[in-house]
Amino acid sequence: MDIAKILSDQQITPKSSIPMYLQIANTIQNKIMAQLLPEGTRLPPERELAALYGVSRTTAINAYRQLEQSGMVKTKMGSGTYVAAAINPSPTGVPWSQLFVPPPQTTMVSLIRELISVEITGNTVSFAAGMPDPRLYPTDLFQELFLRYQRKLNNFELGHIPTEGSTSLRRDVVSLMNQQGVQTGQNNTMIVSGSQQGLYLIAKVFLSPGDYVVVQSPTYLGAIQIFQAAGARILTLPIAGAFPLNLLEDYLIRYRPKLLYMLPTFQNPTGQVVPLEERKSLLQLAAKHRLAIVEDDPYSELYYGSQPPPSLKALDDYGCVIYLGTFSKVLFPGLRTGWMIAPEKVIDRVALEKQYVDLHSSNLSQWLLHHFLQEGLLANHLRHIRQEYKKRRDSAVHALRRFSNGQISFREPEGGFYLWCSLPEGVTSRSLLHETAKTGVTFVPGEAFYADAGGTHEFRFCFATHSRDLSTDGIKRLAKCLAGLEKNKPANSRDNLSRRPII
Amino acid sequence: MDIAKILSDQQITPKSSIPMYLQIANTIQNKIMAQLLPEGTRLPPERELAALYGVSRTTAINAYRQLEQSGMVKTKMGSGTYVAAAINPSPTGVPWSQLFVPPPQTTMVSLIRELISVEITGNTVSFAAGMPDPRLYPTDLFQELFLRYQRKLNNFELGHIPTEGSTSLRRDVVSLMNQQGVQTGQNNTMIVSGSQQGLYLIAKVFLSPGDYVVVQSPTYLGAIQIFQAAGARILTLPIAGAFPLNLLEDYLIRYRPKLLYMLPTFQNPTGQVVPLEERKSLLQLAAKHRLAIVEDDPYSELYYGSQPPPSLKALDDYGCVIYLGTFSKVLFPGLRTGWMIAPEKVIDRVALEKQYVDLHSSNLSQWLLHHFLQEGLLANHLRHIRQEYKKRRDSAVHALRRFSNGQISFREPEGGFYLWCSLPEGVTSRSLLHETAKTGVTFVPGEAFYADAGGTHEFRFCFATHSRDLSTDGIKRLAKCLAGLEKNKPANSRDNLSRRPII
Repeated sequence: MDIAKILSDQQITPKSSIPMYLQIANTIQNKIMAQLLPEGTRLPPERELAALYGVSRTTAINAYRQLEQSGMVKTKMGSGTYVAAAINPSPTGVPWSQLFVPPPQTTMVSLIRELISVEITGNTVSFAAGMPDPRLYPTDLFQELFLRYQRKLNNFELGHIPTEGSTSLRRDVVSLMNQQGVQTGQNNTMIVSGSQQGLYLIAKVFLSPGDYVVVQSPTYLGAIQIFQAAGARILTLPIAGAFPLNLLEDYLIRYRPKLLYMLPTFQNPTGQVVPLEERKSLLQLAAKHRLAIVEDDPYSELYYGSQPPPSLKALDDYGCVIYLGTFSKVLFPGLRTGWMIAPEKVIDRVALEKQYVDLHSSNLSQWLLHHFLQEGLLANHLRHIRQEYKKRRDSAVHALRRFSNGQISFREPEGGFYLWCSLPEGVTSRSLLHETAKTGVTFVPGEAFYADAGGTHEFRFCFATHSRDLSTDGIKRLAKCLAGLEKNKPANSRDNLSRRPII
Repeated sequence: MDIAKILSDQQITPKSSIPMYLQIANTIQNKIMAQLLPEGTRLPPERELAALYGVSRTTAINAYRQLEQSGMVKTKMGSGTYVAAAINPSPTGVPWSQLFVPPPQTTMVSLIRELISVEITGNTVSFAAGMPDPRLYPTDLFQELFLRYQRKLNNFELGHIPTEGSTSLRRDVVSLMNQQGVQTGQNNTMIVSGSQQGLYLIAKVFLSPGDYVVVQSPTYLGAIQIFQAAGARILTLPIAGAFPLNLLEDYLIRYRPKLLYMLPTFQNPTGQVVPLEERKSLLQLAAKHRLAIVEDDPYSELYYGSQPPPSLKALDDYGCVIYLGTFSKVLFPGLRTGWMIAPEKVIDRVALEKQYVDLHSSNLSQWLLHHFLQEGLLANHLRHIRQEYKKRRDSAVHALRRFSNGQISFREPEGGFYLWCSLPEGVTSRSLLHETAKTGVTFVPGEAFYADAGGTHEFRFCFATHSRDLSTDGIKRLAKCLAGLEKNKPANSRDNLSRRPII
């Protein structure tokens, strides 16, 4: 074995910022690790090594000393320098889980994930996912768009576009918002990868651990998760009765929350609408206390009676509302396209954050949506799905009342996707889910929507996903399970809820 | 004004979790804020109020006390309760900037953002952005796909898909990786919104503030930004000479870094390739120390001579490599689609995080890419762009040598997009950029790629974006600017670099 040859195929750079002894040590270590110099090989004496690389003897000595320290070579007094035993890989593998930062709260997340991932096939009826019915997606319209516009697909539209979104789609969103009474402009508008991302970015930009956020209670599960993951402390406004302005003002004075997050229109999960008068009062209070409000508005176009009141953003003379819209519920979730309307300062800061997350959202979705909106296809599609979802709501309301013998109570919502149902005392929604799941019927237990305790006797029922027949069938099965539970419920119905020690 | 009527149109719910006095106070506050009860209005005496809502007198007293505390009413002794002066909105607006968490480091970000956003029109020649030439995007192939597959667009493909990505595209990516010698499966594969997002998610999952990360120096700017924004401390491995295994081992023992991030193939910005032998040695060292390596690999398919060595992932018997791939450089950035190959534990944890960020990436991009790959269109396209980029590299190398009279030095890269250029002493890349920008020519100053100091005399030159003619024209202008600076450079060239007090 010609050691000199093996060692000298790599050059040493005197001008490099790495000291020469380290360059030599690196070279030798590389050879050893690549198994070109097996264990026990006697390496050249220091003087020879120095000559080999054209360096001083001190440099050579230092190189060997470095290799000795890292366990690559062994020096035997009076005999020379030898390649040490091979490095053994650590037998246990990379300890991945120990490298991770603590995960966000996951119990509810994984429960929900499971519920939502239930395949919608055969006998399964999921009232759990807050999803539009795939059968109602305007797929045919998008097929048309492919045909009509494919020739116009332009190379320059496929490169990097502004983080805030494609100029043409932002312009379309501005007109959409104008039609809904919101005065805004392109610089106040940003395209996001679903309103989920809008909320995520808001949390990233506004919330440090320990900050306070006010939410309605119950509220959208995804928002609770995002705020909790950001380390925020959550203050809750009960949703029953008039909007609790006093309580909110108390929070504002006592805790100085960073944000109020709410869905004023066809709320998820209750379907409730904050009346116009209360919206105005809320905005006045916000102006008095310089409160930032995040208005999440996925459902306002899905009304089944008269149109709901204007959005908070439309009424916001003071400029305190950050508005989130989305195409996921009215078109389809796979577009992963939503938008944010906010003061320019907010848009700028959020865009800075979005750069890190994904540079910008998918051009193809934005390009297709632009043509969809330009062709004026949205209004007709909305008319169509409103009619269909209204029928589904009516049918679900009717069937739930009829088959549960009034044991399940709820308020009929004027829009959106959900019935917020209460169970009789002694039956928890988890125990009911436990039974219905066996028959292929799911829904989301109420607890998921509370940042604090609550919701054990409530559940969210999404009436939008299935045809009326399938839905009625599911409701029958659900009612049967409930009747079974009712019959067997313990005499002292509070028993169910008392805590038992875990042993 | 019939105050009783105004007040009693809202019901009080005795069974609510909100105390009755608070419900009454809320109602009255709402009326006041909606200006239905103007300033100075005398409210009903407590006894009347109690009767109006059917509550005890104590409840009525508490309601007024609550309203007084929040400044809505004033009690005049012996005279009654009156609506107080209207709430004045705070005149200064929401203090947005004060609500934001501190932004990540932004000087370099905004510099780069500016450089990259320079419009590629007319006379402008940008060597700054690391972007493929839009003229080389396979737009025609995607138009074809629109035509051929539009009928097959399926409603169920447009709903929510797994966070890890569409099953069919993941399968395609697995075969792609298999062809490149990586043994992997679907459960080890995740689709992300560009490899940028992959890196972002890795930082989210692995890095707490104060954690150590090792990077090459110089390295990809976006990685430095993401790691810094996560609060990580960055340790650097100089890229000149052999891979510095000793230094790395020293870091591993001394700092226990969470990750080593590197681009082993056609590195950004230097174009360097870590030789096979050094890859093997590195993986051995990683196995010995249970080190997690993030291999960012956007360029390995863009080789202009012989194929580069297999990726670290392909050589990784120990399972310590997280691999990031992307379609942005070989197809087009607007797809916003990349992928991650990693141990299942990592994929699971990263998917949990991605749920928060955007639920999943755009279905349309994934659907189109699936058909693109299924049709086997990638190989041909790669052949085509390799030829073209090779010509551009050769032309840029030639022109830079010729027109700069050897004043700009660099090593000719075997692939990728970049020349890593050094300027003569006395000329900084910033001062050169200052001049060239006036003539419409830009590049990225070397400093941007160093987590520590360095790069003042270096710059990154992207040869991929422009045609050879335009590129040569830009190089001529650049060389002219350099000659100008050379002529006027101060006698003592170190002067430029000495720090001057900012006054």
